[in-house]
Amino acid sequence: MSRSVLVSGGCGFLGSHLIDRLLRRNDLERLVVVDNLWTGTRDNIAHVTDPRFSLQIADADSFSSGERFDEIIHLASPASPIWYMREPIRTIKANIGGALNLLMLLKPGGRFCFASTSEIYGDPQVSPQPESYRGSVDCTGPRAAYDESKRCTEALLFEQQRVSGLDVRVVRIFNTYGPRTRMDDGRAISNFVIQALTTGVLTVYGDGSQSRSWGYVDDIVEGLERFFWRDSISHRGPLNIGNNHEVSVLHIAEFVSSLVPGSSIEHQPPVPQDPTNRCPDLTLARHLLPGWEAKTGYQEGIARTFEWFRQRIAATRM
Amino acid sequence: MSRSVLVSGGCGFLGSHLIDRLLRRNDLERLVVVDNLWTGTRDNIAHVTDPRFSLQIADADSFSSGERFDEIIHLASPASPIWYMREPIRTIKANIGGALNLLMLLKPGGRFCFASTSEIYGDPQVSPQPESYRGSVDCTGPRAAYDESKRCTEALLFEQQRVSGLDVRVVRIFNTYGPRTRMDDGRAISNFVIQALTTGVLTVYGDGSQSRSWGYVDDIVEGLERFFWRDSISHRGPLNIGNNHEVSVLHIAEFVSSLVPGSSIEHQPPVPQDPTNRCPDLTLARHLLPGWEAKTGYQEGIARTFEWFRQRIAATRM
Repeated sequence: MSRSVLVSGGCGFLGSHLIDRLLRRNDLERLVVVDNLWTGTRDNIAHVTDPRFSLQIADADSFSSGERFDEIIHLASPASPIWYMREPIRTIKANIGGALNLLMLLKPGGRFCFASTSEIYGDPQVSPQPESYRGSVDCTGPRAAYDESKRCTEALLFEQQRVSGLDVRVVRIFNTYGPRTRMDDGRAISNFVIQALTTGVLTVYGDGSQSRSWGYVDDIVEGLERFFWRDSISHRGPLNIGNNHEVSVLHIAEFVSSLVPGSSIEHQPPVPQDPTNRCPDLTLARHLLPGWEAKTGYQEGIARTFEWFRQRIAATRM
Repeated sequence: MSRSVLVSGGCGFLGSHLIDRLLRRNDLERLVVVDNLWTGTRDNIAHVTDPRFSLQIADADSFSSGERFDEIIHLASPASPIWYMREPIRTIKANIGGALNLLMLLKPGGRFCFASTSEIYGDPQVSPQPESYRGSVDCTGPRAAYDESKRCTEALLFEQQRVSGLDVRVVRIFNTYGPRTRMDDGRAISNFVIQALTTGVLTVYGDGSQSRSWGYVDDIVEGLERFFWRDSISHRGPLNIGNNHEVSVLHIAEFVSSLVPGSSIEHQPPVPQDPTNRCPDLTLARHLLPGWEAKTGYQEGIARTFEWFRQRIAATRM
């Protein structure tokens, strides 16, 4: 049975990796990417030559089409704080407006997959965070437009599942890094790598003791692929996907710095409401996706990311 | 300085009481109510003859006008669980879509007031709930579309305040009851009163030990009026408005039953995720609104509500 799939945000960091995996599917008849290139880039999909693929430059909340899709994967949203804090309205529209609009493009009985986030846990009071944890988000705070629009989109989808039987799949993705991150993304690992390769001074906000579980993109996208379409899973989520090996921001900075002799670390004041910790409870993921784990250690993942950025920066200097 | 005011949801229970107070303002030049009559009714404003008033039957998320307003008060949303659980998409559109759309109708420098809710605290783990409490909402649960759309609209407004200096006022309204509640509203006090006056059998879900702070509508609307326009307050909220005298659902049922000799109480299975308690910390309200309190005791408030429903039911029987 051939399938038509729409991916919103398919030119983004995660999205473009997911596109590569979708195009390996034999049952894929047609893949439409809807992206407004706000944080995504054409570069991320420049290598795609598959005739089943097409790109529509449009906002997820207003894209219209006469076509209906068997599967919709809704990724459209900025994911980096400096991006979503700058444009809260646009962030809310991308997530909630995007979901409301794209639901109308789903065939009856079709599947709607959504990339939620560990940010829905806010600054968590329990660690690791199981999916049942209700979170600690300040809904009036400086990160709230992103956190709450992800929470509300989850609510929308699970309510539609209850009210109309919608086939939903919701993942909560923890910190992810790797090739195809924007140069100006602003999150820790890509920042450190670029700073090490350019100015030689790595900026740590606060004392760097805040910890994160750093997931290498290949591992994360493997989890998404298995949950969204490859494995036969009836559970709808939410499902935590991430690396549960917590490493402090300072330790990551020190490791990146060690790759460039002569580079150094400077500290800046902490970012408001930066979570002190974030670590997935992966009990459910291990149960639903036997054998899956975020196996790439930070040393290996960062080395690959470093090499990708090194080549990019070298290319722009030529 | 004469002011133009738009109220979304002005035909609703709370909205219509607020309209009565707005029309007492000498500086009011024009009052436009936008209501789609989903849960609001024309009856609630049938007594209004003021020439400054006009009603536009429209959805808050799509209403358009060439006019710009000095003040917008966004109340459009169902507020009763049986109503918002039935139509989650419409609930999200009313709140978030409504706020996004109405923001475009605000004059530069205008004030945007929003009725949020104690539901943003979910099933609270602290009691009473101060405004700083982050809440315990299951964003995948059966009440999530309402709770999360209120949370996300708060996020939207406070982010816009930060990004663009928007003059916002956000109240979190706790349980409110009184005249002009719909007959089929479905919340406890009006249900008990109508059941006592008709079938004589009052339905309590669960054992009735869940407690609420029951605010009589006049007291609540007095708080809104003072915070939204009457007092000169620079604080933007969120501000809890409610009665902090907790009374159990069973006790309320017993009191209503005592008004109709021969009536009785029956128990039904508990409602999923019905909060066990809800009580506002009013420290901030007392500070910002000196002298304000929800002073109407439940006996007096219920007696007035009872009499209003008695007359309505008698009128429909004639």
